[in-house]
Amino acid sequence: MAERRHDLYLLTPGPLTVAPEVKAEMLRDRSPNAELHRELTEEVRRYLLDICNGVETHECVPIQGSATYAIEAGLQTLMPRDGRLLVIQNGFYGLRLRELAEGLGLDVKTLELPMLPLPTRADVERAIADDPAITHILLCHAETGTGVLNPVDEIAAVARERGVKLFVDAVASFGGFPIDVAALDAEAVFVSPNKCLESVPGIAMVIARRTALEAAAGRSASVVLDLHAQWRYFEEVGWWRWTPPTHVVAALARACERHRREGGTAKRLERYRRNWRRLVDGLRGRGFRTLLPDDAAAPIIATFHDPDDPDYTFEALYEALERRDIVIFPGRLTATGTFRIGVMGDLVESDMDVVLAAMDEALAEIGVAKSPRPAGPQGAAP
Amino acid sequence: MAERRHDLYLLTPGPLTVAPEVKAEMLRDRSPNAELHRELTEEVRRYLLDICNGVETHECVPIQGSATYAIEAGLQTLMPRDGRLLVIQNGFYGLRLRELAEGLGLDVKTLELPMLPLPTRADVERAIADDPAITHILLCHAETGTGVLNPVDEIAAVARERGVKLFVDAVASFGGFPIDVAALDAEAVFVSPNKCLESVPGIAMVIARRTALEAAAGRSASVVLDLHAQWRYFEEVGWWRWTPPTHVVAALARACERHRREGGTAKRLERYRRNWRRLVDGLRGRGFRTLLPDDAAAPIIATFHDPDDPDYTFEALYEALERRDIVIFPGRLTATGTFRIGVMGDLVESDMDVVLAAMDEALAEIGVAKSPRPAGPQGAAP
Repeated sequence: MAERRHDLYLLTPGPLTVAPEVKAEMLRDRSPNAELHRELTEEVRRYLLDICNGVETHECVPIQGSATYAIEAGLQTLMPRDGRLLVIQNGFYGLRLRELAEGLGLDVKTLELPMLPLPTRADVERAIADDPAITHILLCHAETGTGVLNPVDEIAAVARERGVKLFVDAVASFGGFPIDVAALDAEAVFVSPNKCLESVPGIAMVIARRTALEAAAGRSASVVLDLHAQWRYFEEVGWWRWTPPTHVVAALARACERHRREGGTAKRLERYRRNWRRLVDGLRGRGFRTLLPDDAAAPIIATFHDPDDPDYTFEALYEALERRDIVIFPGRLTATGTFRIGVMGDLVESDMDVVLAAMDEALAEIGVAKSPRPAGPQGAAP
Repeated sequence: MAERRHDLYLLTPGPLTVAPEVKAEMLRDRSPNAELHRELTEEVRRYLLDICNGVETHECVPIQGSATYAIEAGLQTLMPRDGRLLVIQNGFYGLRLRELAEGLGLDVKTLELPMLPLPTRADVERAIADDPAITHILLCHAETGTGVLNPVDEIAAVARERGVKLFVDAVASFGGFPIDVAALDAEAVFVSPNKCLESVPGIAMVIARRTALEAAAGRSASVVLDLHAQWRYFEEVGWWRWTPPTHVVAALARACERHRREGGTAKRLERYRRNWRRLVDGLRGRGFRTLLPDDAAAPIIATFHDPDDPDYTFEALYEALERRDIVIFPGRLTATGTFRIGVMGDLVESDMDVVLAAMDEALAEIGVAKSPRPAGPQGAAP
C-alpha cells in the first residue's frame, strides 16, 4: 500500500496539491513596500523570464487575479483596436479565450477545429489566407478541456512567416513544457502560478515582448489591468501598483525556487510523465480507455471514457473519490462521456498508486465493475 | 516590558499583522468547485452583508485583486456612461479615486477640499447645485493618507435629498466603523479584507444595491471585472467565475468568524480606539504632536508631525523601526513633514507598548531627542 503523502489530493486543472513548504511561506506577513517584497517580486519576474528564454526580448509582468485576469490584461494592453484576432478553438479553453476576446469588443475570427486531429500548419495558413485582415493569433497550448497538447511551435512558425503576431495561453503548460518565447517570437505568453509552477492561485503573469509593451501606453480600457502601466511601475518604482497579495507572491517565489531545485522544466515534465504513465497504465489495466492517443495528450491530465456500466454516473464517481479526499476535475468537459484526472502538483508516482487504490474502492462502492469492458484500442471514438 | 505578540508588526494601511489562526487556514488546499469552498464564499458574502445591514437591499460580490480592482469593477459595472461622477477629494486616496475614475474615461467632476475642515453638507450641496449634471458621488470614508474620517452619513443625506447616488470607498473602514448601507442608501460600498477585517490581501468586495446590479448587465468594458456577471454566477452556479485564490478566501472566512467572535464592528472599534489612545498618549508624552485634532481622526491610524530635530529624517526613523521588525506607513503622504502609524490588525494595547519602546530605541539610535519640542496644541499646523 503506497503511503499517502497529502491529506487531500487535488487532481484538477488547478489549484493543485501544493507542497507544504510553499504554503508555509504564507504564514508570514510582509510589507509590500519593503525591500524584501520587492526582491521576491523581482526574483519571480527574473526566474520566469529566464526559463522561457525571454531575458533579451521580453518582460515578465505579474498581475493580480487568476490567469484569466492576465489574459484580459494582455489583450486589453497589447491588442491594437484596429487589429483582428484569430482564435484557434479546439476545446473548452479555446472557447473561453474566444468569449473573453469577444467580450472585450475585439475584432475576433474563430478557427473552430475538432478536438483531433491536432491543428496543422495548413489549417492556420488557410485561415490567414482566407482572411488577410488577421493581425494576431491566440492559441491555447495545453487544452485541459480535453487533454490535448496543441503544436505551438508549428503554429508559431506559420505566424512568423505570415507576419502575424502570436499570443499563447500557456496557463496550463508553463513550467512543465518547454516554451521559448524568443524562438516562438511570441507577442505574449500567459502564465499561471497554480499549474505546472505548483504554487497557489491569486496572481498570474504575462510574458510580453518588450517592444509591444513599449507601444502599448494608454491602450487598456481598464486601469487596473493596464499591463504597460504595471510594467513601468515595476521598472521605475519596483512595487506593485496596488496592494499585492503578499502571501501569494511569497509562495510563488518559493515555488520558483522549488522548480529550479527540481532541475527546471525538463525535470518537472519527466516527473509528470512518470505520474501520467503510472495512472494511465493503471487505469488501462482496469479496463479504462483514454480519450486521446498518447502522442496527442499533454501528460499533465488524462481523460478517460466513462465505464460502460449502467450503474456508473460521473457524479457518483466524483463523490466517492471526494469522500476519500481525492478531487478530480469537475464538470465543464469538452468531450461528454469522459472524466479527467490531473497529475500536476506536488505529486510523485507513489501518489498515483494511492489514487488507483482509491479508484478501486470508489468503483466498488458505487457498484461499477472494475473491468467495465475489454481494453480496446486507445484514443478511439467511444 | 510588554510581551511581543508578533515577530513582525505591520503598522501600515494594510496588509496588516494578521492573526496566526487566519493565516493557518492557508495551509490547506481546497478545490474551488467543491461544496466546502462554495460554502466559505457564501459565508463571507452573508456575513459582510449582515454587518452593514444590506441583506434586504444589497448584494455582496467578491472580486479577485486588491480593493482598487473592486472599485474599478464597481465603477465599470454600476456607473452609467451618461452619468457624471463627483469625486470628493481631501487626501491621497481621494486623489487616487479621481485618477481611477478618469482613467476609466468616466465623466468626472472633482470637489477638491483641504484636509480640514471636514467636508460639510454645504460643500456638497453647493457642488451639486453648481453642476446639475452630477448623478453620482464617490467618497473615501477613512482617508488613510491623512487619517481623516470623512462624515459619510452627512454626505449620504445630501445625496439622498438631491437624488444623487453614492459610492463609498470604505476600504479602510469597513469592519471597524459602523456602516449601514440601507440607511446610507448607498449605490455601492467598496470593501477590503486586509484592513479592519484583518485578513490577508488578494480579493475585495463590492456591496452593491441589488437593483443597480440588475440594471448593469453588459455595461462593464472589462470581462473579468464585470460585477453583474460575477454576481449572477454566484447566484446561479455558486462559483467564482475563474479560479479564485482559494487560500485567501478561506483566510477571509476565518477572519469573519473572528470578527463575529470579537463582538462585531462595535467591539473592534473599541479595541482600535484603545490601541490608538495608548499610542497617541504615549507619543504625545514624548513630545510628539498629532496632525489632526482627535475628533477628526479615524482611530485606526495616527499621523504625527516630524520631530523638530536636525538629525531627524523619515527614512532614518522608518529603517530604525524596520530593524526592530516594525513597519510603519511608507511614503505617499498627503501631508509632508509627518509620519503615520497604523493600529489595525491583530493588535492590542500591550502591542502599542512594544511599539513605544521600539520608538524610544529607534529615536535614540538615530540621535533624535526623545522630547523634540514642548508638547504644543494638538492638531495645529506645524
